[in-house]
Amino acid sequence: MKHFISVSDVGNVSALVAKALQYKLSPYADLHLGRGKRIGLLFLNPSLRTRLSSQVAASNLGMEAIVFNVDKEGWALEFQEGAVMNGTTVEHIKDAAPVLGQYFDVLAIRTFPSLKNREEDYSELFIKQFIRFAGVPVVSLESATLHPLQSLTDLVTIQESLVEHPLQGKKPKVVLTWAPHIKPLPQCVANSFAEWVNAWGGAEFVITHPKGYELDEKFTKGATIEYDQQKALAEADFVYVKNWSSYQQYGQVLCSDKNWMLTNQSLQSTNIAKVMHCLPVRRNIELSDEILDGENSLVTRQAGNRVWAAQAVLAEILNACK
Amino acid sequence: MKHFISVSDVGNVSALVAKALQYKLSPYADLHLGRGKRIGLLFLNPSLRTRLSSQVAASNLGMEAIVFNVDKEGWALEFQEGAVMNGTTVEHIKDAAPVLGQYFDVLAIRTFPSLKNREEDYSELFIKQFIRFAGVPVVSLESATLHPLQSLTDLVTIQESLVEHPLQGKKPKVVLTWAPHIKPLPQCVANSFAEWVNAWGGAEFVITHPKGYELDEKFTKGATIEYDQQKALAEADFVYVKNWSSYQQYGQVLCSDKNWMLTNQSLQSTNIAKVMHCLPVRRNIELSDEILDGENSLVTRQAGNRVWAAQAVLAEILNACK
Amino acid sequence: MKHFISVSDVGNVSALVAKALQYKLSPYADLHLGRGKRIGLLFLNPSLRTRLSSQVAASNLGMEAIVFNVDKEGWALEFQEGAVMNGTTVEHIKDAAPVLGQYFDVLAIRTFPSLKNREEDYSELFIKQFIRFAGVPVVSLESATLHPLQSLTDLVTIQESLVEHPLQGKKPKVVLTWAPHIKPLPQCVANSFAEWVNAWGGAEFVITHPKGYELDEKFTKGATIEYDQQKALAEADFVYVKNWSSYQQYGQVLCSDKNWMLTNQSLQSTNIAKVMHCLPVRRNIELSDEILDGENSLVTRQAGNRVWAAQAVLAEILNACK
Repeated sequence: MKHFISVSDVGNVSALVAKALQYKLSPYADLHLGRGKRIGLLFLNPSLRTRLSSQVAASNLGMEAIVFNVDKEGWALEFQEGAVMNGTTVEHIKDAAPVLGQYFDVLAIRTFPSLKNREEDYSELFIKQFIRFAGVPVVSLESATLHPLQSLTDLVTIQESLVEHPLQGKKPKVVLTWAPHIKPLPQCVANSFAEWVNAWGGAEFVITHPKGYELDEKFTKGATIEYDQQKALAEADFVYVKNWSSYQQYGQVLCSDKNWMLTNQSLQSTNIAKVMHCLPVRRNIELSDEILDGENSLVTRQAGNRVWAAQAVLAEILNACK
Repeated sequence: MKHFISVSDVGNVSALVAKALQYKLSPYADLHLGRGKRIGLLFLNPSLRTRLSSQVAASNLGMEAIVFNVDKEGWALEFQEGAVMNGTTVEHIKDAAPVLGQYFDVLAIRTFPSLKNREEDYSELFIKQFIRFAGVPVVSLESATLHPLQSLTDLVTIQESLVEHPLQGKKPKVVLTWAPHIKPLPQCVANSFAEWVNAWGGAEFVITHPKGYELDEKFTKGATIEYDQQKALAEADFVYVKNWSSYQQYGQVLCSDKNWMLTNQSLQSTNIAKVMHCLPVRRNIELSDEILDGENSLVTRQAGNRVWAAQAVLAEILNACK
Repeated sequence: MKHFISVSDVGNVSALVAKALQYKLSPYADLHLGRGKRIGLLFLNPSLRTRLSSQVAASNLGMEAIVFNVDKEGWALEFQEGAVMNGTTVEHIKDAAPVLGQYFDVLAIRTFPSLKNREEDYSELFIKQFIRFAGVPVVSLESATLHPLQSLTDLVTIQESLVEHPLQGKKPKVVLTWAPHIKPLPQCVANSFAEWVNAWGGAEFVITHPKGYELDEKFTKGATIEYDQQKALAEADFVYVKNWSSYQQYGQVLCSDKNWMLTNQSLQSTNIAKVMHCLPVRRNIELSDEILDGENSLVTRQAGNRVWAAQAVLAEILNACK
């Protein structure tokens, strides 16, 4: 693995999931793999789980991790080719990236979409420019349209749950459901979950959302789209809850119907489904207290698994550099 | 020691003071105690001494410390049970704490009072919720009403001074005096100093402040309250200077009388008293230059001792986890 | 070397340059030199290259580096003697510095000029107060009027280039040219480069800028001042590009003539000059894309060399402490 930006950087999804679960069993198995190596963790947006789980994962591999909060530490980067920099940006990615590539063996970066210009966001200009100029392996800590470390974690959590509670040969039914939120959020967690579940191939996969919230088919192709949440949830084994803003009417909030927030009542037709969410979650807006505090919630475990997913990816990259 | 929130978490105050002074003599005596352990240092408010001394203390014990400035890194936490999170908070403590508890072996957290709602502040809702949901030992880096690492440091500094300049069997007279400030400050340093001096039992203890600045008796019981600063200071061996806002008229500034600021003149009736302050100090508002720059000031040494106090506490917690 | 504030702290400039180039060849040659030592990196202003290169340099020497963003973490320091602190500053340098000196073996600090009061800025009050009160070796990460780690890096980069492309016995012609910018910037990079090139003595040194941009002669004495950029550039081997605000009409922007921005055209009379800049650079304002993206730009390599310069300086300081 040279870079880690999307599922297409992964040779064998199931093998990567298995590797993450092995690290969960023995965190320090590869403590020498990253000796003398440094990873720079760059955040253009705030992060809690991604930042801390990546630091812990790097440390478990013996790597030194150095965090740089690009936004909070006062560094506005320019990404446009040919820009006349007479505004608020202080440094071009073409200058910053190769410098960072000299300081670190691996660079990991979180960027965010504008949610204003769909074409620009979906071109993934920021992270692609970064890869182009950094000269070292780049790991996405979430980009404008994808969040691959989250999606790997999600599959790790589903797989772990299936090992504990086998489904007797049947493929699990996995439902991704839209949920309300007070702000327009990126589509990246949903896009990414969709492309990873499809690439994995181990599930019957249904996506449910109000009309107007259709995701880019590039990611969802292969999944069943069902606009009726109750129909979608029938016999579900895993329900992944997430808000996103509209892809069609780009970045807009089209629906605030509270009925889309799951309650125990809405889950009655499921196969005692496990409920997932990437966190942070707005309680009683996206998901009800009763579900988050109930015994079928996987959200805490899921967030804990972020460490093992990051560790598996970093190990692959370190192995590829050797 | 399971958690470290107040003096009541400590079995033997004098023994903990002695342990801190031992670490001052040999900082790396327990360099292997924390091997492979991680502590998360979470700040909901800015911190200089507490942050750096905790990092150094952890490092002296071989632990990895990771800092997360919750406020500055853009993470507003919700603490109210049942909240409908449609406002500015992005994540509930019920979700964040157990995630952090999976990433770290020990969590340390700084919270702050609102100074608006006394009942809420004095319920210590924030840190108690944190303990309830984190699932790992929690160390207070200052909470709404207490600052136990500071108070342990204060006793360490008094004890160190007494060893160097013994008082011939007599108990030292320790005076806590209120001082002016331009802003309303929490009562936590004063509350905490009071309960630690009382629990320690090694001093004749007097508290002096203007009327209306009475602290909660829960912490001060056993101390003499004297409204006349000059009377209080007579024959004092140690004078601890600190501003706090009113507990009775909660969070208000009732007095700005400059005569409450100590000068060399005010100290003439003392037993050449050593002067203490937890820092940061507003010079020539809370304390005069002549005292801070004079030879009886302990403030720099006191701040240096923060390392050894934190190290003693972390060592107790690591020993209890084994 | 006790402190590192200006070129006058350096015994032998060429030897220090050589030491940095040795570390570039073998980064871990002195991995044990800093064992058990801690450096505090304090930033009163944002920093990318300086922060990261210093962390990497410290780590290469086995030191633990702890970063504290004084500004971003909410700590406004007071530097005036005798101040009555009833304003926005929360702690006096006289109190903060000796505390930090107890936590760290070496302190490194970045301060900035006001660009309003020349006398105050040029007195270097901030860093001098810091040295006076810290009690441990202090390294400048850029001060009000100088940036010595940058200047050492600049000489390292020139020397490295000369080794690769020897000039047949002739001294290189080094030209420092002013360039436009949209904001008033400090003079420190230019001042410092001037005093280091002069102290080094290995170049024919010319400084060119519009009238009114004369630097303090204390730093430039020995260099040729030439107001005609084209004349200055003739036969140049190295062209160092940098904006600064006026020293005479202190802190003012007197010129915004775009002709001062270098293009390939302006470099035609040079000896295929290498182009340098300390970064960050405002593209197409200070320097054109065609030069920055061209094969004679040294800026990326120069920024990479920051690590080796910092490592050489830290090693000198560690050796002097032994």
